[in-house]
Amino acid sequence: MATLEELAGLVGGTVRGPDDVIVQRVAPIDVAGAGDITFVVSAKYLDKLQGSQASAVIVTPGVDTADMPAIVCSNPYLAFAKILTHLQIHRPEPKGVMDGAIVSASAALGEGVTIHPGCVVGENASIGDGTILYPGVIVYDDVVIGADCTVHAGVIIREGTILGSRVILQASAVIGSDGFGFAPDGSSYYKIPQVGIVVIEDDVEIGSATCVDRAALGVTRIKRGAKIDNLVQLAHNVEIGEDTILVSQVGIAGSTVIGNHCTFGGQAAAAGHLKVGDNVTIGGRGGVTNDVDANQVLSGLPVMPHKDWLRASMSFGKLPEMRKEIKKLKSQLEQLEMQLKEK
Amino acid sequence: MATLEELAGLVGGTVRGPDDVIVQRVAPIDVAGAGDITFVVSAKYLDKLQGSQASAVIVTPGVDTADMPAIVCSNPYLAFAKILTHLQIHRPEPKGVMDGAIVSASAALGEGVTIHPGCVVGENASIGDGTILYPGVIVYDDVVIGADCTVHAGVIIREGTILGSRVILQASAVIGSDGFGFAPDGSSYYKIPQVGIVVIEDDVEIGSATCVDRAALGVTRIKRGAKIDNLVQLAHNVEIGEDTILVSQVGIAGSTVIGNHCTFGGQAAAAGHLKVGDNVTIGGRGGVTNDVDANQVLSGLPVMPHKDWLRASMSFGKLPEMRKEIKKLKSQLEQLEMQLKEK
Amino acid sequence: MATLEELAGLVGGTVRGPDDVIVQRVAPIDVAGAGDITFVVSAKYLDKLQGSQASAVIVTPGVDTADMPAIVCSNPYLAFAKILTHLQIHRPEPKGVMDGAIVSASAALGEGVTIHPGCVVGENASIGDGTILYPGVIVYDDVVIGADCTVHAGVIIREGTILGSRVILQASAVIGSDGFGFAPDGSSYYKIPQVGIVVIEDDVEIGSATCVDRAALGVTRIKRGAKIDNLVQLAHNVEIGEDTILVSQVGIAGSTVIGNHCTFGGQAAAAGHLKVGDNVTIGGRGGVTNDVDANQVLSGLPVMPHKDWLRASMSFGKLPEMRKEIKKLKSQLEQLEMQLKEK
Repeated sequence: MATLEELAGLVGGTVRGPDDVIVQRVAPIDVAGAGDITFVVSAKYLDKLQGSQASAVIVTPGVDTADMPAIVCSNPYLAFAKILTHLQIHRPEPKGVMDGAIVSASAALGEGVTIHPGCVVGENASIGDGTILYPGVIVYDDVVIGADCTVHAGVIIREGTILGSRVILQASAVIGSDGFGFAPDGSSYYKIPQVGIVVIEDDVEIGSATCVDRAALGVTRIKRGAKIDNLVQLAHNVEIGEDTILVSQVGIAGSTVIGNHCTFGGQAAAAGHLKVGDNVTIGGRGGVTNDVDANQVLSGLPVMPHKDWLRASMSFGKLPEMRKEIKKLKSQLEQLEMQLKEK
Repeated sequence: MATLEELAGLVGGTVRGPDDVIVQRVAPIDVAGAGDITFVVSAKYLDKLQGSQASAVIVTPGVDTADMPAIVCSNPYLAFAKILTHLQIHRPEPKGVMDGAIVSASAALGEGVTIHPGCVVGENASIGDGTILYPGVIVYDDVVIGADCTVHAGVIIREGTILGSRVILQASAVIGSDGFGFAPDGSSYYKIPQVGIVVIEDDVEIGSATCVDRAALGVTRIKRGAKIDNLVQLAHNVEIGEDTILVSQVGIAGSTVIGNHCTFGGQAAAAGHLKVGDNVTIGGRGGVTNDVDANQVLSGLPVMPHKDWLRASMSFGKLPEMRKEIKKLKSQLEQLEMQLKEK
Repeated sequence: MATLEELAGLVGGTVRGPDDVIVQRVAPIDVAGAGDITFVVSAKYLDKLQGSQASAVIVTPGVDTADMPAIVCSNPYLAFAKILTHLQIHRPEPKGVMDGAIVSASAALGEGVTIHPGCVVGENASIGDGTILYPGVIVYDDVVIGADCTVHAGVIIREGTILGSRVILQASAVIGSDGFGFAPDGSSYYKIPQVGIVVIEDDVEIGSATCVDRAALGVTRIKRGAKIDNLVQLAHNVEIGEDTILVSQVGIAGSTVIGNHCTFGGQAAAAGHLKVGDNVTIGGRGGVTNDVDANQVLSGLPVMPHKDWLRASMSFGKLPEMRKEIKKLKSQLEQLEMQLKEK
C-alpha cells in the first residue's frame, strides 16, 4: 500500500491529480478496480480507460487521462514493473537451514540464508548472504553462490560452479552438467572428460529446465544481466554477453560466443565455434551458421537480413506456381523461336 | 483377467465365437500368445492374424477373423485402450504420508492420498482425495490439487497453482515458474514480477520436463482434457483449449490463446499475443505468426495451408535449377530480341 | 601425475624427446604452462606451439614440434581424452547408502555402491556394483541398474527400466515416463496405458533433461554406446542404434528406429514409424519424414542430400528477385510476340 506521491517518487514520475490517493495493487486495465493502479503503454488501450474503476493510471506525458489520477513518466512499462515489485513482492524472512535439509559440515553459509527441506549442499560449498534455496535444490561440492540469489526447487548445480549475486534460477534448471564431448575411437566413442566449470555473473536469470553445460576445459560463462528463458541449451564453453536475452528453446552449440545486448527469439539456434557481435537480434527459429557482425537483425536458416527473410518467406508458397511459369515461358520461347525461323 | 463377454461389455462391442474365453493380457499382434487379446486397426495387419497364437482379437465389423474369437466394435483402438486399462492398470493402494515426506502442518490432505518420501508440501496447500505424489515432488505454498491426480517424481508446482481432478503430471514437469518478462531499463533489464497463477483443469496430462509459466498478472490456463507432451514450453498468460494436443517440444509464446480440439505437431510454435481458432492442426515444426481461423490444417514457417506447404517444400530443392532456367531464358530472350531487330 | 613415457604407453604412441618429463595436467594450447601437456589437432594451431610454455604436446607423426617433448600418435584428440581421463578423473570412493537416502528393504545393492542423500530407491530395484546415485535420484520399483553407472542428481527412473553397465545419466534426465498415447473417444481423448519399458544398454550416455518415454507395449531401446545430448525427446517404442549420436534438442517420434553410427544435429527430428539406416547423418534441424537408406548425409525439411540443401538454401533469399525476373521475362516475351505479329 502506498500513496500516489510515494509511487511517483519511486519511478521518477510526477503526479497528476490528488497525490494522496491510496494504491493497494497493480492490475491490468480490463480488471482494475478501486485501490488498483493500472497502466497504458499503447494508444489502442486508451479507450478502455474511460470505463475503468481503477484508482490511478501510469501514462506518458501528453496522454489525456480525464479525471483519473495519474503518474506521468517516460517509461510506464518500467514504472509498472517497479510499482508492482514495490507493492506485491516481499522477500520471505530468512529461515536458516530448515529441517529436512542436508548441508555438509564444510559448507560456508552467509547471514540470512534459507535452505528448504530436501536440499542437499555438498562439501566446501559456499552460500552467500540472503540467498534462498527452495526445496529439493542439489548443490554439488565446491559450488560458490553469491548473495541474495533465488534458487527454485529442483535446481541442480554441479561441482565448481560459480554464481554471482542476485542470480535467479527457475525450477529444475541444470547448471554445470557435462558438456557433450566424445572422441571417435574406431567405431565407437570415448568420453572426453569435462573438467571446466560454469560461471554465472550477477543479475542473471535462468529459466526452468534450461541446461548450461560445464566447459570441457576452462569456463562456460553467462555474463552480467543476461536473461535466459526455459528449456534453453547452452553447450560447453559457450559465452553469453551482458544483458543478452535468449527466449525459450534456444540452442547454442559448443564454444560459440554471443555478444552483449543480443536477443535470440524462441527456438533459434547457433552452430558451434561462432562469434555473434553485440546488439544482434535473431528472429524466432533463426539458425546462425556463420559469424555475425554487430548491430543486425537476422532471421531464417541460415540467417539473412530479417527483411529479406520476410520477403523470401512470403514467396515460398509461390514456388510451385513459379515452376509452372518458368515451364510456360520456356515453351512460349520455343514457339517464338520457331516462328522467327519460319519468317 | 476377464472373459471375452466381460470385455465386450466394457467396450460396447459384441462377441464373435465363444464368449467365455479367458483373457489375461493385451499384446501386439507380433508377440501375442495364449491368454492374450490383440487388435487389428489397419487392414495391412490382417495377414498377421493367421499365424497368431492370440486367444482373441478386437476388430471392426465385417473383418474376417476366421476361427479366432473376436470382440467386434466400431473403434478397436479405443477398445484396446480400455481393455488394457482394465486388465493391467491398477491404482496403487493409498499409503498416506510416507516416512521421509515433509508436509506442512497447515496443508489439507484428502482421504486416500499417498505422499512418497522426498516430497515437500508447503503451507496451506491442499491435496484432493486419492491423489498420489511420487517421490521428490515439491509443492509450494497455497497450491490446490484436486482428486485422483497422479503427480510423478520430481515435479515442481509453484505457489498458488490450481489443479483440477484426474490431472496427470509426468516426471519433472514444472508448473507455475516465473514467466519471462523484463522491462528495458536503459541498457539492462528490470524483472517484471510474475504475480499471476496457473490453472490446470480436469483430465489434463502434462509431459516430462514441460514448463508451464505462471501469468504475469491473471491466469495461464490449460483447459479440460488437453494433452501436452514432453519438453513443451507454455509461456505466461497462454491459454490452451479443451482436448487440444501439443506434441513434444512445442513452444507457445506469451498471451497466445489456442482453441479447443487443436493439434500442434512436434517442435511447432506460435508467437505471442495470437489467437488460434478451434479444430486447427499445425504440422510438425509449423510456426504460427498471425491469428489463425478455425478448422484449418496448416504447416510451414510462417504457416500456410498444409497442402500448399507440401507442394512448396517439394519445389524447394529445385531452387538452384530454377535460377539456372531463369538465367537461360533471359539470354535466349535477349538473342531473340537481337534477331528480331536484325530482321 | 605421470611421465611422458607412461602416457605414451597409455595411448599407444611414441615419445619424441626425453621420456621422463613429468606431466601434471592437460591444458589447451593458449593457457598451457609448465607441467601441462597440450595437443595440436589442426595445423592452424601449430604456430601457437612456438610461444607455449607447455611441458609436452600430443601430435600426429610428421608434425615438427621443435624442442618441445612430444607424444606422437595417430589420433591426438583421442589421446588427449585418454590422458585427461587418466590424470584428472578419479571415481570417488564408495560411500554406501548415505544418511538421508531412502532405500527400500527389498532393493538389492551391489558392492561399492554410493547412494547420496535425498535419493529414493523403490521396491525390488537392483543397483549394480560400483554404481553412484548422486543426490535426489528417484528410482521407482523394479528398476535394474547395471555396474559402474553414474546417475547424476535429480534423475528420475520409472518402474521396470533396465540400465546396462557404465551408463551415464546427466542431471534431471527422465527415463521411462509414459509415452504420449491417446485414443480419440468422440470429442475427447482416452489415455492408452503405457505398460512397456525402457532398456538402455551398456556405455550409453544421456544428457540433462532428456526424456526417454517407456513403450506403450514392448520396449523403447537405446543400444550400446549411443550418446544423447541434453533436452532430447525420445518417444515410446523408439530404438536408437549403437554408437549413434543425437545432439541437443533432437526429437524422435514414436516407433521410429534409428540405425547404428548415425548422427542427428541439434534440433533435428524424425516423424513416427520410420526407419533410418546405418551411418546416416542428419544436419542440424533436419526433419526426417520418410524412411532413409543407409550411408547418407541429409538436411532440410523434409530432408534431401545435404549438398542439395545447402545450394537450395543459398537460393532461398533470391526468391523475391526470381519472382521479379519471371514477371519481367513474361512481359518481354509478350512484347516480342506483339512485335513478331506486327512484322
